[in-house]
Amino acid sequence: MSGEPRIFEHSFFVPYADIDQMGFVYYANYLVYFEMARAALLRESELPYLEMERDGVMLPVVESHCTYRKPAHYDDELTVKTRLVGFKGPRLRIEYDVCRGGEILASGHTVHICMSPEGKVLRPSPALLELVGMPAP
Amino acid sequence: MSGEPRIFEHSFFVPYADIDQMGFVYYANYLVYFEMARAALLRESELPYLEMERDGVMLPVVESHCTYRKPAHYDDELTVKTRLVGFKGPRLRIEYDVCRGGEILASGHTVHICMSPEGKVLRPSPALLELVGMPAP
Amino acid sequence: MSGEPRIFEHSFFVPYADIDQMGFVYYANYLVYFEMARAALLRESELPYLEMERDGVMLPVVESHCTYRKPAHYDDELTVKTRLVGFKGPRLRIEYDVCRGGEILASGHTVHICMSPEGKVLRPSPALLELVGMPAP
Amino acid sequence: MSGEPRIFEHSFFVPYADIDQMGFVYYANYLVYFEMARAALLRESELPYLEMERDGVMLPVVESHCTYRKPAHYDDELTVKTRLVGFKGPRLRIEYDVCRGGEILASGHTVHICMSPEGKVLRPSPALLELVGMPAP
Repeated sequence: MSGEPRIFEHSFFVPYADIDQMGFVYYANYLVYFEMARAALLRESELPYLEMERDGVMLPVVESHCTYRKPAHYDDELTVKTRLVGFKGPRLRIEYDVCRGGEILASGHTVHICMSPEGKVLRPSPALLELVGMPAP
Repeated sequence: MSGEPRIFEHSFFVPYADIDQMGFVYYANYLVYFEMARAALLRESELPYLEMERDGVMLPVVESHCTYRKPAHYDDELTVKTRLVGFKGPRLRIEYDVCRGGEILASGHTVHICMSPEGKVLRPSPALLELVGMPAP
Repeated sequence: MSGEPRIFEHSFFVPYADIDQMGFVYYANYLVYFEMARAALLRESELPYLEMERDGVMLPVVESHCTYRKPAHYDDELTVKTRLVGFKGPRLRIEYDVCRGGEILASGHTVHICMSPEGKVLRPSPALLELVGMPAP
Repeated sequence: MSGEPRIFEHSFFVPYADIDQMGFVYYANYLVYFEMARAALLRESELPYLEMERDGVMLPVVESHCTYRKPAHYDDELTVKTRLVGFKGPRLRIEYDVCRGGEILASGHTVHICMSPEGKVLRPSPALLELVGMPAP
């Protein structure tokens, strides 16, 4: 419910596998970094995605967006700052900044939809609403 | 200066490596498919990206966007339909539909900026303008 | 029965995503190429892996090996030549050469084991034995 | 010249991107894990690979091998135990175990060759020999 969304940080070193021939992180890998940050966030929140899936709640991505400002390089230590913006109906918006030290290299967002394994759109569970700091209805 | 942007098609089969545990193509891989389609387009246009790089013209991605409608599966034959929308100053917009048969599974765009290897923003070359069907200035 | 194992060929262009900062195909991607070649082989043999999985036969990899001789580059047209060497009990050996024109860039093999989804080791089915050119027992 | 090779450990959580549709880590990703472990080892040894490249020493992979015993899953915490076995002439052998808790899920090795950027085979530098616990000649 808090006015400010919660921010989680996840840090890692860029592996060689992620670098392209310009010596930069290949652009699709930022979406992988977003996902690693989401997983770390859920893990720390004691709401692991695997358990959600077992409970019949999936959060497939329906939209992704990324703006690339400066390149990241091999072995850079990067930090993804993740903001759970909140639900609008069944749709959850999450925003990300990928940083090296104080510098933002890339920014983006993903939109997820709350679904059953059979593809039925679901209302977000109380646990999910609590996670994003929204009051249960 | 055709009113209609040119559309290129590139088809391939989804490899096992691209599938996640829901049995769907992992969301970051669509950006790889966009890039494979761009490469195929440049190859067919006899303007291969490698040669452009050798000539000192790079087209790094500054923005990516993708909307995911329906999942793609292992061994699906997918077709990426690519539209070179055109330059706005040094910025090139390209749009993509990822299709299976007549069905659009995902849509997106990338924005690229014309740059020298030293990071200087460049005017698009006549060859690039011709590629996207725009008149040379 | 046949003295010579059957050889299948699968060709493709190297995407930018697969290149590392030395300008070479990153070494783990050769295993992806092996798998794309296996999938193409099964598809052409009208024994698609998905159908096998549906029929309760899985072929997980238990061993992989690759020797790297010469680097492959962005946009190279590569051909994977795949040889189904045959079954030894439940274990299937497949060998691969990754070629550019007449030149072998990398060679390797994978070993697969015939399994049920529950992890029970299975005898190879007659369809699989026929695929590799071995007589049914 | 210690008889026992040094062992380094590197831990991480398996991202969703690495999982295939059986719910297991896709086999090529183990080679990426090997590489991340090598990078962590060099970083901790204060002999970062990037600096080596800048100094004109490259260590391209000429051979990779992996044996897969048990599958790893999404969000598993894995530890790669890396042993620098040593140089045989210009060839460096490194061995890896990928573990979950006390259990070994996969084992493998890579062989690297000491090279200049121009492709000339080099003698291992004193710093590299020291790294692997071998006496300078």
